[in-house]
Amino acid sequence: MTSSTQIQLASRPAGWPVPENFRTAVVELPPLAPGEVRVANEFLSVDPYMRGRMNDVKSYVPPYALGEAMTGGAVGRVLESAADGLAAGDVVVHQLGWRDIAQGPAAGFRKVAELPGVPLSAYLGVLGMTALTAWVGLLEIAHLKKGETVFVSGAAGAVGSMVGQIARLKGAGRVVGSAGSAEKVQLLTDKYGFDAAFNYKDGDVKGQLAAAAPGGIDVYFDNVGGEHLEAALAAFNRGGRAALCGAISQYNATEPAAGPRNMANLITRSLTLQGFTVGNYAQHFPAFATQMGDWLAAGDVVFDETVVDGLDHTVDAFLSMLAGGNTGKMVVRL
Amino acid sequence: MTSSTQIQLASRPAGWPVPENFRTAVVELPPLAPGEVRVANEFLSVDPYMRGRMNDVKSYVPPYALGEAMTGGAVGRVLESAADGLAAGDVVVHQLGWRDIAQGPAAGFRKVAELPGVPLSAYLGVLGMTALTAWVGLLEIAHLKKGETVFVSGAAGAVGSMVGQIARLKGAGRVVGSAGSAEKVQLLTDKYGFDAAFNYKDGDVKGQLAAAAPGGIDVYFDNVGGEHLEAALAAFNRGGRAALCGAISQYNATEPAAGPRNMANLITRSLTLQGFTVGNYAQHFPAFATQMGDWLAAGDVVFDETVVDGLDHTVDAFLSMLAGGNTGKMVVRL
Repeated sequence: MTSSTQIQLASRPAGWPVPENFRTAVVELPPLAPGEVRVANEFLSVDPYMRGRMNDVKSYVPPYALGEAMTGGAVGRVLESAADGLAAGDVVVHQLGWRDIAQGPAAGFRKVAELPGVPLSAYLGVLGMTALTAWVGLLEIAHLKKGETVFVSGAAGAVGSMVGQIARLKGAGRVVGSAGSAEKVQLLTDKYGFDAAFNYKDGDVKGQLAAAAPGGIDVYFDNVGGEHLEAALAAFNRGGRAALCGAISQYNATEPAAGPRNMANLITRSLTLQGFTVGNYAQHFPAFATQMGDWLAAGDVVFDETVVDGLDHTVDAFLSMLAGGNTGKMVVRL
Repeated sequence: MTSSTQIQLASRPAGWPVPENFRTAVVELPPLAPGEVRVANEFLSVDPYMRGRMNDVKSYVPPYALGEAMTGGAVGRVLESAADGLAAGDVVVHQLGWRDIAQGPAAGFRKVAELPGVPLSAYLGVLGMTALTAWVGLLEIAHLKKGETVFVSGAAGAVGSMVGQIARLKGAGRVVGSAGSAEKVQLLTDKYGFDAAFNYKDGDVKGQLAAAAPGGIDVYFDNVGGEHLEAALAAFNRGGRAALCGAISQYNATEPAAGPRNMANLITRSLTLQGFTVGNYAQHFPAFATQMGDWLAAGDVVFDETVVDGLDHTVDAFLSMLAGGNTGKMVVRL
């Protein structure tokens, strides 16, 4: 018999999650059915969207079920296969994260190549859904045009650091980012190629954004919501577009936060706000993957990871990521 | 010598405008220069957007200048012409309202036909910018598709009553409107063909909307902002689109109003909010005018006007319109 150690949702968080909202269970796995594979996970993804799925509310995907294993992106290696096309040793990306051993129908597992010099965790970030999210938001939602000024919040995070680099590579005229520490701000300009960056914890997001983008902004990629969105609405040039990807500033609020006080700017400046979830844009994955692979190989895109070791630290990694403790993609290494 | 009696902006309103913000001046008109026309206005338009232009803030058009005549839509008859293509007696639509006699270069005056049984004031409403606003918002901004459910706020107003009828004629599956009195609500369903309507002054816009659109809404045409926008965000089906045209609930606020508390729905339901001003969509006027002329002639579209008599009551008409005193288009008859 093989067992899988899994992290389950024990109770729904009220506000900030606490360790007691989770529990670890060891589950015996049945023998492989025909068409199934068994995978040893090597890296697990923890992402902001997971906080939303812990609430019992209508959303684009059903909430996590109480008493069941959490799910999420993961990359691992096939241990045993009863499916055509997958063999022991293959590297696969899938959604059965938050556990050490995953098992299920092969259709849920996508085989990927091992690239020289690239850690497998890249398939959760720069070569995975994280960077696809940046790509889709910039190009398919906000319709970035050459020469435009782009503002990204949460810019040192997994998605934000990709947004800034893709914007530059796609011809943005100016790329501005906000982050939550002086170190991250320095990283944005020194490593990721942002033209300007500021620390939102220094206060007055609106004023700092105006100083960093004196000509106004045309595109806003929102990972944060709240005061950042209000500041973007104040900075938008006529015809500006916002791709709303996340609102991490509000995920743990226990009362609904008031929206921007300057929504009227949408009318007077002909602005568009569009929310999206990357799951609806999977058709863009092949074009994205080809281009990103080329950029990576050429050294045009760089990335950081914050790696936490051990399944038993997955909850810690998740909570740290929600609090901004990561630079680049936060992953758990098993 | 000919004189023009004009209403000027004497001071910028703080909150609700008061009569003292305006003054009446009699201005002597110079002789016509070559290429100019002089027009006796017959109807003046008063519109919600004018309130915004009384503030000294950056917007899509410059604010009204202090001490100068107000402007706005008007329809009148040429008294004297020094321009090719326009002759005394011609009916023209133009932007030199808030005065009895208008004079200027002929390029600013558009000749229109006198239609049997249709008052000239129709060129300010059902055949003019008002109904074009409804057309553009529904079709070019919100991209209404057949079978969808449409919600319109301020539905008994000049724009709203057109939105509901155009939506029905373009194949909406269900059309819901809100208005500010029991009489208006009855008008929506009895005369304008709305499937359901409610009085927002009865309270709980969100609950009343949910009852009127039990299957949710796909398109929201916003004339009101504030609580109505929040209610729409709560009612939206996945992929919903809002055309933001006005926010009359907030035009006279002295403090910026907080935005919707449920902006996160944009992300979880893939919603789009797009603001617009009709001036940027003039290229749609010919197609609109042809279709609306056909609908009017066939009796497929009906309209109401609230007519106030006398230039000296223009300010009263404007204030009454801001307070919802009109049904359909508010016009001043000279």
